[in-house]
Amino acid sequence: MGTGSVLWGVLAPMASRCRSVPAPICRRANPPWSLTILVVTLLSGVAQTIAAANCDQWGRCELKLTGPATGNPFVDVKLTAEFTQADQRITAAGFYDGDGVYRVRFSPPTVGEWSYVTSSNAKQLDGQRGSITAAPPTGDNHGPVRVARQFHFAYADGTPFKPLGTTCYAWTSQPDELQERTLETLAAAPFNKVRMCVFPKRYTWNENEPPSYALEGTPPDQWEFDRFNPEFFRQLERRIDQLAGLGIQADLILLHPYDKGHWGFDRMPAEADDRYLRYVVSRLAAFRNVWWSLANEYDFMKEKEESDWDRMIRVVTDADPYGRLTSIHNGFQIYNHTNPRLTHASIQNGSAAEDPGRAVLYRDAYRKPILLDEIKYEGDIPKRWGNLSAEEMTHRCWNTIIAGCYPTHGECYLADDDILWWAKGGVLKGQSPARLAFLKQVLDNAPAAGIDPIDKWQHPRIAGQPGAYYLVYLGKQSPEEWYFVLPKHGLEDGMRFRVDVLDAWNMTVTPIDGEFVVKQQTPYLFADENERTVPLPSRPYQCVRIERVEKSE
Amino acid sequence: MGTGSVLWGVLAPMASRCRSVPAPICRRANPPWSLTILVVTLLSGVAQTIAAANCDQWGRCELKLTGPATGNPFVDVKLTAEFTQADQRITAAGFYDGDGVYRVRFSPPTVGEWSYVTSSNAKQLDGQRGSITAAPPTGDNHGPVRVARQFHFAYADGTPFKPLGTTCYAWTSQPDELQERTLETLAAAPFNKVRMCVFPKRYTWNENEPPSYALEGTPPDQWEFDRFNPEFFRQLERRIDQLAGLGIQADLILLHPYDKGHWGFDRMPAEADDRYLRYVVSRLAAFRNVWWSLANEYDFMKEKEESDWDRMIRVVTDADPYGRLTSIHNGFQIYNHTNPRLTHASIQNGSAAEDPGRAVLYRDAYRKPILLDEIKYEGDIPKRWGNLSAEEMTHRCWNTIIAGCYPTHGECYLADDDILWWAKGGVLKGQSPARLAFLKQVLDNAPAAGIDPIDKWQHPRIAGQPGAYYLVYLGKQSPEEWYFVLPKHGLEDGMRFRVDVLDAWNMTVTPIDGEFVVKQQTPYLFADENERTVPLPSRPYQCVRIERVEKSE
Repeated sequence: MGTGSVLWGVLAPMASRCRSVPAPICRRANPPWSLTILVVTLLSGVAQTIAAANCDQWGRCELKLTGPATGNPFVDVKLTAEFTQADQRITAAGFYDGDGVYRVRFSPPTVGEWSYVTSSNAKQLDGQRGSITAAPPTGDNHGPVRVARQFHFAYADGTPFKPLGTTCYAWTSQPDELQERTLETLAAAPFNKVRMCVFPKRYTWNENEPPSYALEGTPPDQWEFDRFNPEFFRQLERRIDQLAGLGIQADLILLHPYDKGHWGFDRMPAEADDRYLRYVVSRLAAFRNVWWSLANEYDFMKEKEESDWDRMIRVVTDADPYGRLTSIHNGFQIYNHTNPRLTHASIQNGSAAEDPGRAVLYRDAYRKPILLDEIKYEGDIPKRWGNLSAEEMTHRCWNTIIAGCYPTHGECYLADDDILWWAKGGVLKGQSPARLAFLKQVLDNAPAAGIDPIDKWQHPRIAGQPGAYYLVYLGKQSPEEWYFVLPKHGLEDGMRFRVDVLDAWNMTVTPIDGEFVVKQQTPYLFADENERTVPLPSRPYQCVRIERVEKSE
Repeated sequence: MGTGSVLWGVLAPMASRCRSVPAPICRRANPPWSLTILVVTLLSGVAQTIAAANCDQWGRCELKLTGPATGNPFVDVKLTAEFTQADQRITAAGFYDGDGVYRVRFSPPTVGEWSYVTSSNAKQLDGQRGSITAAPPTGDNHGPVRVARQFHFAYADGTPFKPLGTTCYAWTSQPDELQERTLETLAAAPFNKVRMCVFPKRYTWNENEPPSYALEGTPPDQWEFDRFNPEFFRQLERRIDQLAGLGIQADLILLHPYDKGHWGFDRMPAEADDRYLRYVVSRLAAFRNVWWSLANEYDFMKEKEESDWDRMIRVVTDADPYGRLTSIHNGFQIYNHTNPRLTHASIQNGSAAEDPGRAVLYRDAYRKPILLDEIKYEGDIPKRWGNLSAEEMTHRCWNTIIAGCYPTHGECYLADDDILWWAKGGVLKGQSPARLAFLKQVLDNAPAAGIDPIDKWQHPRIAGQPGAYYLVYLGKQSPEEWYFVLPKHGLEDGMRFRVDVLDAWNMTVTPIDGEFVVKQQTPYLFADENERTVPLPSRPYQCVRIERVEKSE
């Protein structure tokens, strides 16, 4: 029985408007998303309001209401909307967006009509009813990314998603022009996930203040922990939508230790942390490309206990009606990723990526997708985590893939302007991204089921899908040939395979003439029936790709 | 208000009676423990019985009662005794031992007087009261082994316990003479833990029936799941006491899949499993050298779900009033060792022991002691898990130690008599046990705090205690020298160290002349101030041992 005004908007990331236009041009040509609202229905001052709008499945609709602007609406006003369709029921929290405006965002998980009703302790916002109709998704809208086949990911429509991320912690805290440059770089890069922070970063090479702050207050350290800055969030949301337009998942780091009390966002009281987390989730959960990362290097935030993190994981996952991907990233002490609220393990450990026989162990321990979200950085800084060669970064990404896990790239080359990709974005200077584009192509052409270890504790460098597809990654070895031999799983005498040699560094694909026909050789192994070997160029970073041939070609 | 008879016995493993006698002779000379009962008080047919006995702290006392012998006492009769001292309260289940005899065993965790009272649904057994006085421990009685310093173990009196186990799955299911031979072998071997099954084993090279069975019934597969065979358990208990006399922990495997329905002990109904587990715990929990291993290769028991194991872990740990060490061992799927009822991780994974940089990852995941309880076997059988060279077995044990974990040895050499150590015991034929004795000596001389990684993800081959003690294990590399360089942790300029070169295979200790004096060289590393190197013999399996010298010698 509300008396507020209701505005339904359908919010679409750029990309769905510019599918056929080259991405960077499209991106620059687009207005901010706040202008893309396709106004549908406006009802105001009626006892019973019914709003209707059309909105794609997995898209984003927004219910706009006018309510109290006095007192502290961030704290005083509770607002939720319940969306129902048959036996589905989604309760989304609304949020105060300043100037007396309240919004509830909704991302319909299924097509068809959804009814809603609002609940609020503010009379104006309470009891608003209506319905919207979700249309089938179009274009690049495959839905949000979910865990699939235990160790992998897929979009909600089933399309495989194989994460190959990069790291730009504080790119949205930089001057606008630099943010634009970062987006241009990303548009041309192979990465489909970005690890990025909500809060700004204070660290070596990171001493600038951000353009705006998530909280109301006076920089650097006088904050009203119970009042948020809607303009800050609108800018952040614009960037997340732009990432969606580029097909990039925003792995949003909610808290981090790179503050050390300069702003104090790393040491807010528990109540403030929880309020902040709920506010972020109420604004962003309906964005289908958002992943929650509770923290970067959570254990380096010395003001918090592990039980605080358990609590905050609950706060976020309880508040999120869509079950977005959720993780937490470690410094020195890996979190207990068996926590069922964590959808995947986000692990910092460079050494795990040095050997596929190491990374693979995490799959057994956590039984969920493993993202090695920090394997050190390509670069030349004196910190020991920041001076991998491009070859080593590439090699580590391959090792991680061969282990049935997923790697995240990072780069920190010293720069006169202190713009290091790892923190601020800008341009990529390293030589690994081109190689990772090659790796991504290999992954895109691999089976939808993904890359799994074939015989996990016996042959750590052989991965793929048993009987169908294999990658045999030889890493730093430089042999002249590889004796064609595979673990028995899925093989039968007479199966035929074609072979390519992939050069992970030089980015070449060399087909090997003729087919390989397997024959059991030992209780555990199959070889080519004529004991053929695969010739190799005596260089490191070679990978033998083996694909089943159903019928002789 | 019982009317039964109460007999207090003090049960001591052999060793405490023969401390100064060479163990094997002593062992052979001793009568079975059932004869070692030192009868103390016998009260019978009184309304209120008070029994008193003396019994060492961490030793074992036994309350003997006479009760119902008709019906099915294993199921019909419930019996517990509550032992109290100040605010300590221990409730121990009693058990039916046949012929109308019931027993309650108690191992006092502290010295001094303990009162007890029995509870039973059988009038004769109910309300028996009395007290015993626990004397201070003597001789080799250091108490049960507990987790210490998160990743390590110590006896209850604080003495470090560094597990170096071996595997004789079915040694107590062999003819008596062979069991005796196994004990002789163990008396001369370096192992301080044995992995051993309650149930017999059916497998290649294991086709003999055991001398007796845990359940009443008709072999091979007609069993009364609700009636146990006390004589079987008395024999098992005798062997466990004999192990205690040799200073060996009995890592008792309660269930296993090497049956495949021949006896059917691998597929008992849940109720029978639980009853069996409670009976075993009621008999054995008071043995201070017993560890519970819920299963070997739990996931190979296809009749059980993972939830069954969760339940059975609860059954065992709820029944055990002493909190004995508890684990569960995997085949292909590692159990979730973060379960707080599991005191340590018991892991089968040979590949983890191939590289200290692999094994170390388990410490992060499980945050408790890691026992690599199957790293493949020294031997020559055609199974791929059973033909490691002695060098490789030795190397894997060293890798595991350097990773801050603990290895378990195993051996299976083909034999005309089908007596392979791994399953039946007998004699050791391999060459690794001598090397493991050398490794054990190194461990015994290492700091009480144990061997931990120094800089876990950076220098996997360097372990010890920061600033005090280091083992730098070079594995299969055969360098001429090792450049003396250590991670910064615990180091300050001017600290002095002495160095030995340990040859893990040839079992030699070569002291290096002169001291090494450290000086910070990089932000992360200290080297010798004169950049000295440690000369090495260009052979594999060398370990540089570095010990702090407090004052120049």
